[in-house]
Amino acid sequence: MKTKLTRIALAVTALLGTAVIQAADTEPIQPIKPPANVNLGMVELGKKLYFDPRLSKSGFISCNSCHNLSMGGTDNIPTSIGDKWQQGPINAPTVLNSSLNVAQFWDGRAADLKEQAGGPIANPGEMAFTHTLAIDVLQSIPGYVREFKQVFGTDKIDIDQVTTAIAEFEKTLVTPNSRFDQWLLGKKDALTKDELEGYKLFKDSGCVACHNGEGVGGNSFQKMGIVEPYKGNTSDGRAAVTGNDADRFNYKVPTLRNVEMTYPYFHDGAYWTLTEAVDVMGRLQLGKKFTKEENARIVAFLKTLTGEQPKFLLPILPPSSDKTPRPTPFGK
Amino acid sequence: MKTKLTRIALAVTALLGTAVIQAADTEPIQPIKPPANVNLGMVELGKKLYFDPRLSKSGFISCNSCHNLSMGGTDNIPTSIGDKWQQGPINAPTVLNSSLNVAQFWDGRAADLKEQAGGPIANPGEMAFTHTLAIDVLQSIPGYVREFKQVFGTDKIDIDQVTTAIAEFEKTLVTPNSRFDQWLLGKKDALTKDELEGYKLFKDSGCVACHNGEGVGGNSFQKMGIVEPYKGNTSDGRAAVTGNDADRFNYKVPTLRNVEMTYPYFHDGAYWTLTEAVDVMGRLQLGKKFTKEENARIVAFLKTLTGEQPKFLLPILPPSSDKTPRPTPFGK
Repeated sequence: MKTKLTRIALAVTALLGTAVIQAADTEPIQPIKPPANVNLGMVELGKKLYFDPRLSKSGFISCNSCHNLSMGGTDNIPTSIGDKWQQGPINAPTVLNSSLNVAQFWDGRAADLKEQAGGPIANPGEMAFTHTLAIDVLQSIPGYVREFKQVFGTDKIDIDQVTTAIAEFEKTLVTPNSRFDQWLLGKKDALTKDELEGYKLFKDSGCVACHNGEGVGGNSFQKMGIVEPYKGNTSDGRAAVTGNDADRFNYKVPTLRNVEMTYPYFHDGAYWTLTEAVDVMGRLQLGKKFTKEENARIVAFLKTLTGEQPKFLLPILPPSSDKTPRPTPFGK
Repeated sequence: MKTKLTRIALAVTALLGTAVIQAADTEPIQPIKPPANVNLGMVELGKKLYFDPRLSKSGFISCNSCHNLSMGGTDNIPTSIGDKWQQGPINAPTVLNSSLNVAQFWDGRAADLKEQAGGPIANPGEMAFTHTLAIDVLQSIPGYVREFKQVFGTDKIDIDQVTTAIAEFEKTLVTPNSRFDQWLLGKKDALTKDELEGYKLFKDSGCVACHNGEGVGGNSFQKMGIVEPYKGNTSDGRAAVTGNDADRFNYKVPTLRNVEMTYPYFHDGAYWTLTEAVDVMGRLQLGKKFTKEENARIVAFLKTLTGEQPKFLLPILPPSSDKTPRPTPFGK
């Protein structure tokens, strides 16, 4: 009788164990879903706009300049370079998987990608243009006029269409099928022992409290420096949006998807290696000093979050016409 | 008898006419041949390097910044933006079909694409790096070390390999199958009547004296301002290379392939429209003032020289490692 019960218990345990390992929905991290409800014509238009430096005053800076899709959707420098080489105030967050974020920008001041897309175009420290001038440029380019008409059904281009199309393209910039997602979806040998131990540490130490969900982050605002204060640059953060003093130094938790590619780290881009970033996070957010071995395992796990990078043909932009307002890279 | 002779004469004339129109090798312009003898592994490596801003001091400027393959292989501004937003001295020539050029740069100071590729990396006004520092960066990136080993069979990366790979990629950046080339190759309805008349004007007026061959230019050095002096910026031009005073204001004749996309025009990028460029060339080089109608026909012909743009997936760059020297976009 006892033997039979034991056998049943073992069988149940084995089943449960399998269920825990295989059923992704019991893990704090969820696999990235490929984008659905995509308007392909709008994506193609948005892709061109994303790569078009004519949306900047200088004719030199495009969305892709700072959110470079060859480099994890970032510029891999601490803070970005804007019009006339102005130094940006904050690290450019990756555009990859940004559709999964609860809001856009480090302080969440844009509700969604569409709202975000209009920001840099008109920011004097970034693309330094105005929405009106950008529309004047686009409206003067016959190739764009035709494509906007095809997509939006009207001869008159407006900024709402521009940001809608860019956001639609950005919706496609997800990175599914990382080794970690393959593991979540049942490929048990997708991760090494060290990587799995790193994931266990990541969960058991409390990193998943903020870095969870499909984006492994991006879905909440948290204080930078909970246990210990952060010694780097700290702006108001979320408080600039809410006006609430309690939100000072609060930033949107960055996604850890493709984190191997999105250095340097944190809102001020002050740390270049994952080893440093894991150490700082452990101490400041969790009051925990990871050993060298623990740190290395967590880093090994983090590198399994690199997914398939967006794969598309470099877009060819329609040429300007004789009537196109000229860029002003120098002077004025 | 006379009637018969006339008929024979007409028949012969018709045959000759057909022959002239259809046999491309009797025209002063030749169709672009697709590239041969291409090393595909080297092309893929060169493509990554071409798009990699880590070859610049700032980590922000790549070959593609000023020779943008979304925009006809140029930056579409009069003179380029270099490190710290320095203003370049001369218009960035298109990289498209540059393998057909007799030499590289406006003054021909580089014999070939390989020699050219090393220039901007180390030019303090452009990418502002050094070859040694660029190699240090590449050698620190495991993904590059593997790919260089695959292509060149050695663990040690050097600048010769870097420029060889970039040049191999650039060899693929030709633009065959323009409507004009289709006409040259026998598709008689590829051009409209106006375009054909524009081509006739282009030949009869003497434009083909310099703009001929596969590149419709790019194969000789000529003085800017033969009949009338050019009023824009004129540097020494070719004389800076030869030391010969007779070569002052001599520049490499630019290719007219894809000229619709490579505005603004001339070595100083002073003219934005083809209408202006054709007018200036007619007056200064040929002593000829084209009528409005003639000018429009030549412009119509020039627009038939836009070929198939290079079609490839945006390259994904291998991430830096913990040991990679950091870019210095600001300060120093």
